[in-house]
Amino acid sequence: MSATLIHQVRVIFGDTDQMGVVYYGNYMRFFEASRAALLRSLGRSQRDLDEWDVALPVVEAHCRYRRPAHYEDLLDIEVTVGELRGASMRFDYNVRRDGMVLAEGYTRHACVSTKGRPKRVPEPLRALIQGQGRA
Amino acid sequence: MSATLIHQVRVIFGDTDQMGVVYYGNYMRFFEASRAALLRSLGRSQRDLDEWDVALPVVEAHCRYRRPAHYEDLLDIEVTVGELRGASMRFDYNVRRDGMVLAEGYTRHACVSTKGRPKRVPEPLRALIQGQGRA
Amino acid sequence: MSATLIHQVRVIFGDTDQMGVVYYGNYMRFFEASRAALLRSLGRSQRDLDEWDVALPVVEAHCRYRRPAHYEDLLDIEVTVGELRGASMRFDYNVRRDGMVLAEGYTRHACVSTKGRPKRVPEPLRALIQGQGRA
Amino acid sequence: MSATLIHQVRVIFGDTDQMGVVYYGNYMRFFEASRAALLRSLGRSQRDLDEWDVALPVVEAHCRYRRPAHYEDLLDIEVTVGELRGASMRFDYNVRRDGMVLAEGYTRHACVSTKGRPKRVPEPLRALIQGQGRA
Repeated sequence: MSATLIHQVRVIFGDTDQMGVVYYGNYMRFFEASRAALLRSLGRSQRDLDEWDVALPVVEAHCRYRRPAHYEDLLDIEVTVGELRGASMRFDYNVRRDGMVLAEGYTRHACVSTKGRPKRVPEPLRALIQGQGRA
Repeated sequence: MSATLIHQVRVIFGDTDQMGVVYYGNYMRFFEASRAALLRSLGRSQRDLDEWDVALPVVEAHCRYRRPAHYEDLLDIEVTVGELRGASMRFDYNVRRDGMVLAEGYTRHACVSTKGRPKRVPEPLRALIQGQGRA
Repeated sequence: MSATLIHQVRVIFGDTDQMGVVYYGNYMRFFEASRAALLRSLGRSQRDLDEWDVALPVVEAHCRYRRPAHYEDLLDIEVTVGELRGASMRFDYNVRRDGMVLAEGYTRHACVSTKGRPKRVPEPLRALIQGQGRA
Repeated sequence: MSATLIHQVRVIFGDTDQMGVVYYGNYMRFFEASRAALLRSLGRSQRDLDEWDVALPVVEAHCRYRRPAHYEDLLDIEVTVGELRGASMRFDYNVRRDGMVLAEGYTRHACVSTKGRPKRVPEPLRALIQGQGRA
């Protein structure tokens, strides 16, 4: 029904902190990497957003940390478009290692013009997300 | 009633991204810096937590981004203990620049022993947070 | 003779890695924070660079790590302009904790116009660095 | 003759800064990711280092930035063991995009026991690096 993808990330030292686990803030990087990968998997990229005069700034982010991720872990970040509205959208994330859920989260994005004004999510992007089109 | 502090952070290039604003994930760093500063302002530090055999891993994080923060901005991060339970606590954050709110968020922390078992928030820390004690 | 400053940085969890020490790449953040602070101490900022149509991209970076820095350490980053040429300059860094040297490094910067063309370091900046002027 | 690998990294927003290019300090993350990938390609990982009671802390890092890397770039990080001594080693890095060199650097590592004492690079690791063994 909705666009989805599993993006893999390998944990490096720079992702961990002295607790020996991935620093909580770095999940936001994983989230971002996965939603960019999702867009790419749909045949689109930042370049298209620029062309459509559209940016998708994060207006809200949330993460629930269930189990720690460690150095060298190969993480599966499942990303889905959980909500698609007129001028905003939400990505949902599920971080797993070998099928075990480590974290869940979401980011909410406004759709704005490059001048920062609210703008309707462009139709081509909308179609791709709803699985009715593919670049 | 509850422990509170305003911690200042100066935005560097490394905090920003190519949108020309502070990268959304880096607010988690600001949050962390401010809660450590709060603990220090109460006369305590990580060393005390170690002594009490206590760690406070983040189990949930949330941030609402209202206005962008820019390079060189001097941010005021107001941090408060918003909730203090038996074996968990919540820090609330309010990020401002010249009095204007840029972001709001919270982090929820479990209180665990160094072996990872749930543990009651130590009394000395509890007293400090409730403003009934000061190191 | 030359502009110099000691800038303080408090190490947070997000700076450390699972080795229990500051991640080697994060010294570059400390370096950057200190050279921005140096510029500010001279009464100048990025805004002035923009006005002079000048950017100072890093073309080379080096760091020698002598002793580890730890969580909560209050680091003194001494920054100096070590070399000032026609269209480039070098900042030197010395990272200390309680007087003990933890790391030393430098960054070399090209002076370019915002279009990326080599450009002479602006006279007002030159004068400030050489201690002959102060904003 | 010597162990070598090309590791790919996709640039995310979190890697860039407001200059619209990859932040200079983040190359250290790319370097680290590539040397861990090299070790993995030889059939070894951090777990083996732990077993051998060996750590390889960075004692020196250097990078020369030739051309900027941008958001979404797919970077090839070529990593080689450039020098293998008794109790130290050097990794060399070459960052390219579509064959064009963007940056070059190296990291020098001490070989120490987990207690921090200098220690000879373990024979199995030595053999792998010199291409005389493979796990």
